[in-house]
Amino acid sequence: MTHENSSPVLIVGSMAFDDLELPSGNSKDVVGGSATYASIAASLFGPVRAVAVVGDDFPDAVLNDLTGRGVDVSGIERAAGKTFRWAGRYSENLASRVTLDTQLNVFADFSPKLPARFKDSPFVLLGNIHPALQLDVLSQIQNPRFVAADTMNVWISGERKVLGDVLRRIDTLVINDEELRELAEIHNIKRAAAAVRALGPKRLVVKRGEYGSMLFDEHGVFFVPAFPLEDEVDPTGAGDSFAGGLLGCLASTGSLDGQALRRALMMASAVASFCVEGVGTRRLADITRDQVTTRLESLRSLVHLEVG
Amino acid sequence: MTHENSSPVLIVGSMAFDDLELPSGNSKDVVGGSATYASIAASLFGPVRAVAVVGDDFPDAVLNDLTGRGVDVSGIERAAGKTFRWAGRYSENLASRVTLDTQLNVFADFSPKLPARFKDSPFVLLGNIHPALQLDVLSQIQNPRFVAADTMNVWISGERKVLGDVLRRIDTLVINDEELRELAEIHNIKRAAAAVRALGPKRLVVKRGEYGSMLFDEHGVFFVPAFPLEDEVDPTGAGDSFAGGLLGCLASTGSLDGQALRRALMMASAVASFCVEGVGTRRLADITRDQVTTRLESLRSLVHLEVG
Repeated sequence: MTHENSSPVLIVGSMAFDDLELPSGNSKDVVGGSATYASIAASLFGPVRAVAVVGDDFPDAVLNDLTGRGVDVSGIERAAGKTFRWAGRYSENLASRVTLDTQLNVFADFSPKLPARFKDSPFVLLGNIHPALQLDVLSQIQNPRFVAADTMNVWISGERKVLGDVLRRIDTLVINDEELRELAEIHNIKRAAAAVRALGPKRLVVKRGEYGSMLFDEHGVFFVPAFPLEDEVDPTGAGDSFAGGLLGCLASTGSLDGQALRRALMMASAVASFCVEGVGTRRLADITRDQVTTRLESLRSLVHLEVG
Repeated sequence: MTHENSSPVLIVGSMAFDDLELPSGNSKDVVGGSATYASIAASLFGPVRAVAVVGDDFPDAVLNDLTGRGVDVSGIERAAGKTFRWAGRYSENLASRVTLDTQLNVFADFSPKLPARFKDSPFVLLGNIHPALQLDVLSQIQNPRFVAADTMNVWISGERKVLGDVLRRIDTLVINDEELRELAEIHNIKRAAAAVRALGPKRLVVKRGEYGSMLFDEHGVFFVPAFPLEDEVDPTGAGDSFAGGLLGCLASTGSLDGQALRRALMMASAVASFCVEGVGTRRLADITRDQVTTRLESLRSLVHLEVG
């Protein structure tokens, strides 16, 4: 499971500056966005190809850091104008947040163009962007082995038809539980999962925040708890880190059987738990594969009957 | 693990008539109450001793049915007047409920008196009643091996001092996650659990509804998912069935080590899942030990890495 044996993971999503109001304090101009978090997470397991857009205000140093992690940034377009900005305020217990401001800036005209050498990418993560852009990316890729997509309430309520086209063309949908219920228009999670799988994706990964995550596939249901943290700092990007970790782990083994998916789900949960421990990508960018493996073992012990 | 080898479980709590407004329809005069649900659940594993109060309107047939299940009903006092009544309306998705009416009736003057032969009970479940009554019951028992107690927001906010006395005298507190946060005045579940364990109970069992349950003990944290049901009918009594199943399973093995607690937590989750499948005790009262064991295996497969 070394980088040399890993297939590359193509990740498309946003890159952003976030202004975060957190119980631990406020932070401005935090580098974020779904592609950033997912790329750092996936790069723990092997090579990554990133597709996104940044403005002329985006620091070269961040792109250089990504390159140093094995992320090919040649699909990150630098456009004239400002980088996407998001501002949000979290509740005292981090259980909820409100968006204070969104400035799409260069992201408003984002039209992902894949470098020629990205077009054979076997593993693809379509981050949470407009489903028409997700389709556009897919049309540029030749015979991917595994395509996962994330989505959100804005597209579920406003772009259901295009989102339906995406669902027919992906292997795995990664979605949070409330969005799953909205997409299926069914509250019961098991029946909602069956209804969404009937729309196309062979597998469904449901993110449930502090309550963990679930996989629905042809073998049944699999459950992974969230790692119980004593110090939660910033949940921003945890879902993207989860998705990036999932794809990175799968690409590193090359297997897509039920057990590989289950192991990757646990790994994704371990990676996402680190993300929450620091503001922005601070903690996520600092961890090693060994630390992730240690946390994976802790997660396993959470559900293991025998105790030492 | 036969009834013959099991230690008896003493269960004190309420017996009631419930009027339930459910998405599947309305049901009046449903026999319920924490002692009823917990006794039926515990009786799946071995002998039970029930302590409660009913009015002169309570049917003998229900007490006879309990007796047939191995529940010693000689601690159920029949008082002049009406049985405790509760009326509630569930939301369309069963995720929340409102109380429409509460009539304490004979429960208002409940003063539990244990029959002499109950006083050596080794396993004790103090259902969710006033903490002063829980203390009163404890004072009547000689050297119990294992005492678990449930509680609720009313006692946490209004009877904190007496509840504190209960916490110092029990082994295990069984509580839902919101009540844990209220009791600890800490949102983070791991730190809240540590704070409550510092108040007395060696172990803490946290019920999280559809998200499962957690055990905090000297070995660390253990997590059990809720069984994902396709048809949820009535969550009334699920928490009491969970607690009854937990105590019944522990008493049936006689072991209180970390592994026994973990296995009992899984068994409790399996038992509680059946309760939700029918109105009132209808489904719970219908299941066999074999069915519980089969569901336990399904629960284990939910968290097991290898798939068939």
